[in-house]
Amino acid sequence: MKPFKTLYHHQLSLLTDLYQLTMAYGYWRAGRIHDEAVFHLFFRNAPFHGGYTIAAGLENAITYVSDLRYRKSDIDYLASLRNESQKPLFSADFLRYLKNLRFTVDIDAVEEGTIVFPQQPLLRVKGSLIQCQLLESALLNCISFPSLIATKASRLCYAAKGQPVVEFGIRRAQGFDGGLTASRAAYIGGCAGTSNVLAGKLYDIPVRGTHAHSWVMSFPNELDSFEQFTKVMPNNAYLLVDTYNTLEGVKNAIIIAKQLAQKNKHLSGIRLDSGDLAYLSIQARKMLDAAGLKNTKIMASNDLDEHIIASLEEQGAKIDVWAVGTKLATAFDQPALDGVYKLGAVRHKNGEWEYKLKLSEQTAKISIPGLLRTRRFFNKNGAVADAIYDEQLGINDFCTIIDSLDSTKRRKINNGTAYEELLQPIFRKGKLVYKIPSIAKSRQRTLDQLNLFHPAIRRFLNPHSYPVGLEKNLFELRMKLILQAREAAQENTQAPD
Amino acid sequence: MKPFKTLYHHQLSLLTDLYQLTMAYGYWRAGRIHDEAVFHLFFRNAPFHGGYTIAAGLENAITYVSDLRYRKSDIDYLASLRNESQKPLFSADFLRYLKNLRFTVDIDAVEEGTIVFPQQPLLRVKGSLIQCQLLESALLNCISFPSLIATKASRLCYAAKGQPVVEFGIRRAQGFDGGLTASRAAYIGGCAGTSNVLAGKLYDIPVRGTHAHSWVMSFPNELDSFEQFTKVMPNNAYLLVDTYNTLEGVKNAIIIAKQLAQKNKHLSGIRLDSGDLAYLSIQARKMLDAAGLKNTKIMASNDLDEHIIASLEEQGAKIDVWAVGTKLATAFDQPALDGVYKLGAVRHKNGEWEYKLKLSEQTAKISIPGLLRTRRFFNKNGAVADAIYDEQLGINDFCTIIDSLDSTKRRKINNGTAYEELLQPIFRKGKLVYKIPSIAKSRQRTLDQLNLFHPAIRRFLNPHSYPVGLEKNLFELRMKLILQAREAAQENTQAPD
Repeated sequence: MKPFKTLYHHQLSLLTDLYQLTMAYGYWRAGRIHDEAVFHLFFRNAPFHGGYTIAAGLENAITYVSDLRYRKSDIDYLASLRNESQKPLFSADFLRYLKNLRFTVDIDAVEEGTIVFPQQPLLRVKGSLIQCQLLESALLNCISFPSLIATKASRLCYAAKGQPVVEFGIRRAQGFDGGLTASRAAYIGGCAGTSNVLAGKLYDIPVRGTHAHSWVMSFPNELDSFEQFTKVMPNNAYLLVDTYNTLEGVKNAIIIAKQLAQKNKHLSGIRLDSGDLAYLSIQARKMLDAAGLKNTKIMASNDLDEHIIASLEEQGAKIDVWAVGTKLATAFDQPALDGVYKLGAVRHKNGEWEYKLKLSEQTAKISIPGLLRTRRFFNKNGAVADAIYDEQLGINDFCTIIDSLDSTKRRKINNGTAYEELLQPIFRKGKLVYKIPSIAKSRQRTLDQLNLFHPAIRRFLNPHSYPVGLEKNLFELRMKLILQAREAAQENTQAPD
Repeated sequence: MKPFKTLYHHQLSLLTDLYQLTMAYGYWRAGRIHDEAVFHLFFRNAPFHGGYTIAAGLENAITYVSDLRYRKSDIDYLASLRNESQKPLFSADFLRYLKNLRFTVDIDAVEEGTIVFPQQPLLRVKGSLIQCQLLESALLNCISFPSLIATKASRLCYAAKGQPVVEFGIRRAQGFDGGLTASRAAYIGGCAGTSNVLAGKLYDIPVRGTHAHSWVMSFPNELDSFEQFTKVMPNNAYLLVDTYNTLEGVKNAIIIAKQLAQKNKHLSGIRLDSGDLAYLSIQARKMLDAAGLKNTKIMASNDLDEHIIASLEEQGAKIDVWAVGTKLATAFDQPALDGVYKLGAVRHKNGEWEYKLKLSEQTAKISIPGLLRTRRFFNKNGAVADAIYDEQLGINDFCTIIDSLDSTKRRKINNGTAYEELLQPIFRKGKLVYKIPSIAKSRQRTLDQLNLFHPAIRRFLNPHSYPVGLEKNLFELRMKLILQAREAAQENTQAPD
């Protein structure tokens, strides 16, 4: 009976990879409890082969960090762990240290609903090396998945050309809060609502629903079932018409709609859940219109994604509301964002920052050293380019950005252009300094942000590549460090046999 | 601050689709509070184009149902919902009914770790129509995702040929309990452990870990970092060797291993996290062996899945432990099982059961009516066939099963063969009558079950198709109902223009 009863309520500090704790133990043992670090949480590729990503999940991260300390049952569990020699994995002294640990880091982050691009920090943690390390796994979990889903939702809304998209995914979501998190992020990404009642309650999202096939099947016939359903939903019933035969179902819905009209009520809509949605929606629309039911809407469901919606739109399907479940709530075609959390610099307490770099044979995986920020530049038409820069090296008004993967791609940012800093202060010395916006505001931010960019970034096939680069000084510093590190690492290498 | 503080603890009753509540309201309004139903939870296709599925998630479902009632804050939220006319969505009388509702259904289910096939009920709910309906969304969530992950884990273990596979997925999992649920299911599916400490604590799963690149980067050089790490993990360190240059890293690990040997300690292993894992593992093995470190293991990670593992095995890679994160914890190539929950029959209280059928133009989507069970038949070599049967029609010792999608595929089951009933009693009139096994037992059940089947069901490409069919009487009943329903549904259909 453990999973939901005793979990979650002030019990998430161990939601991390074991190695974070063993590394923390190692730093502690190495006398590094006053060492400081900067870590950046970012992703390497926009999901779904798309041209942009919507940041989300910050509220989850804030909740996690605000609530974080190691309680007695956590410490007891850690004390029970043994190494291969059957000795305790952690010393009692270290566990005492952990028990007294309070998180005092600075966290900066991009607000939910912000459009972001690869390599830009979505979140930056600065402070105690040990604390930064202990936060890694949960912060990645908090930010990556919601950003993925908000992006997917935004793509669905784009395909639907402004018609409402409703999220219906809880039944096939990955765990309970897989589903809840998806509902919340989908709303931030632009969805009109969710079927998930608990998400509605917790996050203040509009809840929506129709009825299931089982409703129809449980009555002697479809007409009876429709009539009964409109009794409880007198003015907002959507009747599911495909339990037996879709167009027969539409006829029955029309009979019911006419009955309702006689009582000054109306049928909100019908739902198509199988078959050829283009053909069926066009036929259904004709039948409804012919019956004078121009305001009765057609909702479609059945394993929809943005490509199917776009295709249906192109075929002239007459669908007014789109219900998307599995493909949205699990981000089916790419169910994880490639979020990472990389060390940028370390220092002894209040000493000089040492910039840190991870090499890789895959150039895209070489890290960016420094204490990074992102500045977004605007002209009167909207956003023109983003510069990732190091806050110690600074950034000039006359700045040049260089593509981190192709140094021949450079762009000068003109003097006098307006700009915005993407990272906002969230925690200072462990204290929350950020006012979490309402979810409605975060959702509006997504919509507003999209207006700042050329619509070509939203295209599914070969989207426009918005210019993002490293500010020139940072680029050059990184290049120097890469070359030094490569030289040092290869010095002793012999070709193996 | 809402998501994790106030959630989960006795607060999951609204984790459902809105339409379950509106249908419940409809049944209640239609005077059907004493009507009964049977619903079956099953899936339509084995995931990953595989030949089998491992059932998991029953403990989650039990926890959910055991804890289920509508508390004041739930009722208050439901009372706040409005329809399009700004009138309350639910009547006060119905909400009072909900508040007093206690779940009294019978639930039968397949035990965790059981091998199952499409169309077989993994879980069956029988009792109050309203209660059955209210359980749908959460039960699907509880069972589908864990079964998916247990199956994925089992495939990874198969590819690894008995070498341990460890689950490292929390950072990119879909929400906190997306990750926790995955850790638990992966262990049931055969994994050796998880990196997720909270999963270890809650579910009694062995926890495992190494260290990150940031550990190495935070020290002046790799050798220092390795030395420090083995101080805290004297006999069970795995050193990550690819921060700068993999084979140079192996050399540094060997230096440390030799130092440890002088102190009668040993280096457990190294971890490769990038590059050509076949080449690098073979070289590293040679280097380790040449240094007399035959017992120092090689762990590999880096976006592994069963196909990459199988390919590496085939190339002769010298990898002893496989760490799999994203691709396991999200079931990346198919992140949802197509679980459904379909009505089989309804009756007025204690009356005759009326068998119910949902038609579909896609034959695979036509439901199976009845009160279903699955009987698995064995000969001395193991399982030979499964019969899905209706408990009222019964099943004979001389039984014939017929493929539901191809009625020319028939198989006679010989008299005297041993058999097992897959569905076990879990709840009777809402009371738990099942003793939940330890997770270790469920994991062992998976391993034992796999031995009952021909190994060809585990093959990735064109796996053997284990025979599953409808018992002949059920098949014929269903056929009759389909033909009746098709005739009734098409009677009035005219070809639309």
